[in-house]
Amino acid sequence: MHATQQLLIDGQWVDGAAASFDKSDPVSGAHLWRATAASPDQVNQAVAAARRAFPGWAMRTFAERQAIVERFRDELDAHREPLAESIAHETGKPIWEARTEVGAMIGKVAISLTAYHERTGERARDAGGTRAVLRHRPHGVLAVFGPYNFPGHLPNGHMVPALLAGNCVVFKPSEQTPMTADLTLQCWVRAGLPAGVINLVQGAAEVGQALAGSADIDGLLFTGSARIGGLLHRQFGGQVGKILALELGGNNPLVVKDVRDPAAAVLTILQSAFLSGGQRCTCARRLIVPAGESGDRLLEQLAAAMEKLRVAEPFAEPAPFYSGLVSPQAADGLLAAQADLEAQGGRVLVKMRSLQPGTSLLSPGLIDVTGCEVPDEEHFGPLLKVYRYRDWDQAIELANDTRYGLSAGLIGGDQPDWDDFLLRIRAGIVNWNRQTTGASSDAPFGGIGDSGNHRPSAYYAADYCAYPVASMEADTLSMPAELPPGVEL
Amino acid sequence: MHATQQLLIDGQWVDGAAASFDKSDPVSGAHLWRATAASPDQVNQAVAAARRAFPGWAMRTFAERQAIVERFRDELDAHREPLAESIAHETGKPIWEARTEVGAMIGKVAISLTAYHERTGERARDAGGTRAVLRHRPHGVLAVFGPYNFPGHLPNGHMVPALLAGNCVVFKPSEQTPMTADLTLQCWVRAGLPAGVINLVQGAAEVGQALAGSADIDGLLFTGSARIGGLLHRQFGGQVGKILALELGGNNPLVVKDVRDPAAAVLTILQSAFLSGGQRCTCARRLIVPAGESGDRLLEQLAAAMEKLRVAEPFAEPAPFYSGLVSPQAADGLLAAQADLEAQGGRVLVKMRSLQPGTSLLSPGLIDVTGCEVPDEEHFGPLLKVYRYRDWDQAIELANDTRYGLSAGLIGGDQPDWDDFLLRIRAGIVNWNRQTTGASSDAPFGGIGDSGNHRPSAYYAADYCAYPVASMEADTLSMPAELPPGVEL
Repeated sequence: MHATQQLLIDGQWVDGAAASFDKSDPVSGAHLWRATAASPDQVNQAVAAARRAFPGWAMRTFAERQAIVERFRDELDAHREPLAESIAHETGKPIWEARTEVGAMIGKVAISLTAYHERTGERARDAGGTRAVLRHRPHGVLAVFGPYNFPGHLPNGHMVPALLAGNCVVFKPSEQTPMTADLTLQCWVRAGLPAGVINLVQGAAEVGQALAGSADIDGLLFTGSARIGGLLHRQFGGQVGKILALELGGNNPLVVKDVRDPAAAVLTILQSAFLSGGQRCTCARRLIVPAGESGDRLLEQLAAAMEKLRVAEPFAEPAPFYSGLVSPQAADGLLAAQADLEAQGGRVLVKMRSLQPGTSLLSPGLIDVTGCEVPDEEHFGPLLKVYRYRDWDQAIELANDTRYGLSAGLIGGDQPDWDDFLLRIRAGIVNWNRQTTGASSDAPFGGIGDSGNHRPSAYYAADYCAYPVASMEADTLSMPAELPPGVEL
Repeated sequence: MHATQQLLIDGQWVDGAAASFDKSDPVSGAHLWRATAASPDQVNQAVAAARRAFPGWAMRTFAERQAIVERFRDELDAHREPLAESIAHETGKPIWEARTEVGAMIGKVAISLTAYHERTGERARDAGGTRAVLRHRPHGVLAVFGPYNFPGHLPNGHMVPALLAGNCVVFKPSEQTPMTADLTLQCWVRAGLPAGVINLVQGAAEVGQALAGSADIDGLLFTGSARIGGLLHRQFGGQVGKILALELGGNNPLVVKDVRDPAAAVLTILQSAFLSGGQRCTCARRLIVPAGESGDRLLEQLAAAMEKLRVAEPFAEPAPFYSGLVSPQAADGLLAAQADLEAQGGRVLVKMRSLQPGTSLLSPGLIDVTGCEVPDEEHFGPLLKVYRYRDWDQAIELANDTRYGLSAGLIGGDQPDWDDFLLRIRAGIVNWNRQTTGASSDAPFGGIGDSGNHRPSAYYAADYCAYPVASMEADTLSMPAELPPGVEL
């Protein structure tokens, strides 16, 4: 399977009519991709193709749609390695992790089938000569915007449930990860998805603006930054009937309390803050640690483990814990953020640094910002802020002191601490003694505050991919035994 | 039970600090109510009281909240007649219908309990030494805006699930129905709901604007007009984390095909178009009838039945089919709409007319607007538009030719017609051989297009009253058998 470096519109692979763009491996620097972006006109063509395909796709039986989606799953399975390699090259993540991402794409099919039936299936009951039936129907044409950090898994998590429910899709991947999108769409084509049911428009912001602004989409499913998500939410304001699902960022707290096994705590912190080089939306960004000796010791052990953490190119042997950021520019942005935090009074405990100039490889950083006025921003990389707390209430206050609310974690503590944490913490993923980056595949996924618009994804993606239709139905019209008050016929 | 004619803020009944307003019975003209509206400052006080009450209410066990909600149900049951009388006097609906509304309020409690557990309850499974737990948590402070047509039932349908889930509420009823809101809140107070958990702010648009614009609400649950709903949707644009649930209007089609029992068809049309004097959001507004002789005959029979339909004051004996509109002004608006349709080429088949000057009593109207350019508006009263069609495809096209999508019905036809109708019609409530105004109480309720923002209510109200929290939890931190790649401790 090789990338076509083209758009997919109405079942045809075509060149983009706008400017060309390039994608290089952020670690090796190798050129991966050059193609021309979709023009606004081509975006409209893609939406129109999806619109034409919609009635036919929506009217197929669920079993027919399921069969095609399962063939797609088999295509993914048959092309695991090229997909994983594409993900590793484009994102800079280790190949072992890219392989788990392809596994998650494959696993999404079974989960989506279960969720469809449980959350949005059909049910009927007899209501005295009338059948009360609940069905769910697709919206129509949905735009899907993919992020770069999971270029396979995250858009797949929107597209599989959207297609199962009978929607048609226009997919705009991140311009940082065009190749993985291309390979994914090839799997859909091979699976026999009818022309126009899924369409691919490659390119950067202008393509996204044309697609989000199309009058003929019925909704938009977005995973990405809070900034863009907020703009989309404003843009969709007043367009009551369009479905908008936003999965945005976080400034996630991880609270430490009464740890008995410091090594296990350190491992959990590493996995929370630095997995994928900190490029998961669930990554811990704020480590909230008791003031005093026990906290000092834990931070020392954490710093020591960070110094030993292996960061290397995605295909290195022995395997690295994490590899590059998505681009050298992203790495520069993180280094600048570290410098800003330091200028705002942050005390660097472990300095994040570039491991190889010109690449996106960064060592992990740890900076104590206790008492500093630092912005409530998501730093999407291996940079962990530390806050020291005096008592439990202050720990909770610090943890909740964010406009976001995606993930949160508690390490240590006893059952009453956990019960209290659960009651008071405000986030959509809340873990205890487990890394913040570990979300259950069969659970809903989403945050509150500026982390999302209450359209939880993953297991609840079914909810925003279809709307309920409630029916009272009877084969025949018949007169009731008694006429209602005031009626004579 | 007598109305207090006051606001309820933090458990205290207090006078409003803004201008006084009045409510009169729209049929008898009797003065029902005079009170002072809430000032913007009082709206803020109500929101602040709800905010203070929130942690305590949210942290109660579900069983404790359920017990109070069930006592509220018992209070409703104990005050059925004063509530029904209040509804009948304020809205102008027949007392028999007002009694069914109180019954629906009482029934809502059991349905909301079932829905809470099914849609948003708790579940746990073991995932290899970790518990994967799904819980649902309340948003915080929710504003509830009630409509005038079901002043008890519809806000109750937001408030019962919101309170069960652990939210606190600030309720702004329609200024047309302050007394029913007052009596309902008295039932909550008697049920032992803690101070501040529910608050009542009376008044018109300025009160609504102050409440919707409050920075400290976490969401707004609204049932009312598409115009106001659209304004709210625009206002909330960019406020990603606030939940907004909109149940708006419709321009609902009722398609007639191959009717074998014309009397039953006529009855179903009467119940679809004229129940509650056309003041239900599910009422049929557009009757789509075959051109030709069979359609002519049906319309003649319908017209004859409309002439005999009993319209009289709410407490009249024998009981009327429907009574007054909510106000004489609303009745004047309907008469003006009929005149506009006539001016746009509509052919009056049965003229809607005022039955008693100065009251809101209107006889039902039927107007053929086939081929006319008439606005796609909801006329919230007993005025039914007729469209004649040549073939089935045209019937479906006419039915879908609206920016709304709340309810739709098919009368007559065979199973293949119904199957096709179901596939092609775009609405959230779609009935066959049953009135469009009959929605199943245990089904979700909501429309598409300009009829709502895909936050279906009724059985799915649970969904927007709580957000999911997914957890991976373990009592103890422990080291895995094998460290992840790249980690040394």
